[in-house]
Amino acid sequence: MIDFPYIRDICQTTDSKIVLLVVDGLGGLPHPSTKMSELETANLPNLDRLAQISACGLTTPVLPGVTPGSGPGHMALFGYDPVEYLIGRGVLEAIGIGVKLGRSDVAARGNFCTVDKNGLITDRRAGRIKSEESAKLVAELAKIKVHGVTGEFHPVKDHRFVLVLKGKGLSEEVGETDPQAEGVAPLDAIPLDDEADATAEAVNMWVSEARMVLKGRDKANMVLLRGFSQLPSLPDMGETYAMKPAAIAAYPMYRGLAQLCGMTVIPTGTSFDDELDTLEANWDKHDFFFLHYKPADAAGEDGNFEAKIAALEELDKRIPRLVNLGADTLVIAGDHSTPAVIGAHSWHPVPLMVHSMDTKGEGIDAFNERQCANGSIGRIPATSVMMLAMAHAGKLAKFGP
Amino acid sequence: MIDFPYIRDICQTTDSKIVLLVVDGLGGLPHPSTKMSELETANLPNLDRLAQISACGLTTPVLPGVTPGSGPGHMALFGYDPVEYLIGRGVLEAIGIGVKLGRSDVAARGNFCTVDKNGLITDRRAGRIKSEESAKLVAELAKIKVHGVTGEFHPVKDHRFVLVLKGKGLSEEVGETDPQAEGVAPLDAIPLDDEADATAEAVNMWVSEARMVLKGRDKANMVLLRGFSQLPSLPDMGETYAMKPAAIAAYPMYRGLAQLCGMTVIPTGTSFDDELDTLEANWDKHDFFFLHYKPADAAGEDGNFEAKIAALEELDKRIPRLVNLGADTLVIAGDHSTPAVIGAHSWHPVPLMVHSMDTKGEGIDAFNERQCANGSIGRIPATSVMMLAMAHAGKLAKFGP
Repeated sequence: MIDFPYIRDICQTTDSKIVLLVVDGLGGLPHPSTKMSELETANLPNLDRLAQISACGLTTPVLPGVTPGSGPGHMALFGYDPVEYLIGRGVLEAIGIGVKLGRSDVAARGNFCTVDKNGLITDRRAGRIKSEESAKLVAELAKIKVHGVTGEFHPVKDHRFVLVLKGKGLSEEVGETDPQAEGVAPLDAIPLDDEADATAEAVNMWVSEARMVLKGRDKANMVLLRGFSQLPSLPDMGETYAMKPAAIAAYPMYRGLAQLCGMTVIPTGTSFDDELDTLEANWDKHDFFFLHYKPADAAGEDGNFEAKIAALEELDKRIPRLVNLGADTLVIAGDHSTPAVIGAHSWHPVPLMVHSMDTKGEGIDAFNERQCANGSIGRIPATSVMMLAMAHAGKLAKFGP
Repeated sequence: MIDFPYIRDICQTTDSKIVLLVVDGLGGLPHPSTKMSELETANLPNLDRLAQISACGLTTPVLPGVTPGSGPGHMALFGYDPVEYLIGRGVLEAIGIGVKLGRSDVAARGNFCTVDKNGLITDRRAGRIKSEESAKLVAELAKIKVHGVTGEFHPVKDHRFVLVLKGKGLSEEVGETDPQAEGVAPLDAIPLDDEADATAEAVNMWVSEARMVLKGRDKANMVLLRGFSQLPSLPDMGETYAMKPAAIAAYPMYRGLAQLCGMTVIPTGTSFDDELDTLEANWDKHDFFFLHYKPADAAGEDGNFEAKIAALEELDKRIPRLVNLGADTLVIAGDHSTPAVIGAHSWHPVPLMVHSMDTKGEGIDAFNERQCANGSIGRIPATSVMMLAMAHAGKLAKFGP
């Protein structure tokens, strides 16, 4: 949680409602020819109007220069130190496909790879085999039995899968078998501390069985495992903030992250309109709602400036519906920037606006990177967003006498 | 290093090149009559043009209100927490005159002082005796032999010198002999912990011998020692950042600081033009270059507003040559402000610009304190400059899945 030891003392339950809309990959960078970013180029009358009566600023997801993955980007917005509460790759991949993990399970991210007759890796991604083929292989692997440890294989996309080990005394302190290079053999899983011996041994047995199952194939004849991890022990968000928080997200990974933080995950559909329907239907049941909007990030990752503009404009059309619900505090934030000119997550500060009855406007005309830089919130660590939201909603009592 | 435990995980070696130009004492304050700072008054067409296509901001060297010495100012820019990695006065003085220190050596800063017949200090600086006279006295003191501990005396300027003790089991935990007052006797060196007994005893023997050597003189007849310190153990910059960093600095202190951080110090001449020659000649050998420009600080320390303007204008003329080398990321920063109206280092935030292929300009017209305050970088701790530079140069991988 945010590094403020008195947080539980000052949080107070009230009737006021907070909506935190996370626009994935919100921030961008100027297009080389127009010198204007996606947000500056897009036609966003509703977001701009809201910015004109909000407090605006920029968030730093982790540290200047540090580009966050989806995990750290969201954890920070929920108020958790993204470094202290780093969620492992295996766990994130598992919750990203909706796999339920138990406390003691160890999840790893797997790749099918191709090895030659000497066992040396010739293709770490097995030619990016199709999901269908991959799913069949996963079904074969699922039949493997290793004494004492149950293993579940779940297909992800293309050559990727998730392995979940279930058993007693498992440890996440196991080294990766993926050497991250070709022309060498896969690594044995080695225990990284004394308590991981049995887990490493089980992993090696699973891998050895998998090699036998896949033997004789031209490609995708071996597996590589990385990111062994267990569910982290996170402070409960509702308990910490004295709220009843709920998450409404069309994508499983964000539902999974919210659940790790102790939010109630409300089932919803696959679109942002579905999320808004769900929000309306559950308006009375919670005092905090996290909503997630994915398309801006997806377009940014594709390096498609126009598509990112379109994704932002689609969001803009839905803003009146969101505003009309009358949240006491409406926060629009991003987990990180995904500039189309980079085509990937970036470290750049992310626009933020907070609307409440206390905000009357501060000379900001539009919701974008340059305008938000001049807002009254200034540049804050993303971990401070929850505190700001709660303050605007009257949910934080005075600190100290 | 910057407080980010995953730094080694995200730093990646690339072909891109970073140049960090540290303009010593860069920041200033408005002249009382014009209300314009040195940077605002100077004619800086090249720096201004660069600012127009860079990301700009302000750095806080240590904390708001805290004025750094040269050590903390530079350490922060190199990414080292300037509080955790504080370099002792004796060590800094020694490296400032190019003295090579061994791991176990203890360096102290010395003053010649004048004592009366009762041994009470009448002048802590011995009338600021000339460097020549001081050098002769230092040569006399160099003849002192104390059993088990070798001592080297090095003249600095005027009444100042450096004492370096060499021997086994020396400790820096020795109290100063300078009482920082007149009318009292010099203090005995006392051990500040159990392991410093032998060092304190050796220091007292050296001082006692020095008193004998200097006896009978009207002035400069005694010595005062302060700032006992040993080389700190610093994380290696090249190893941490996965780079091959080099330092090009005309002044020994900055070469010494860079060497402590593990940078390769490339020999150069005594002017900034020499530094640029050296940079050109070594362009292919490193991926990070630290350059140091001293004259702005010297003029500021002299309280000479016009001279500081002239120093900045001289720098400006050399900016095209620097830019033409085509660094992937060019950072222009200052270790601290040295406003001529104060005539000393100050705590004020320092202008910063970062130029890379990602920077297209952000409405900043000129490189100065007021304009940089509106830049997209905002106000950042100086310790974040390296991370920003590396991010712009594509040398930082994503943090977390």
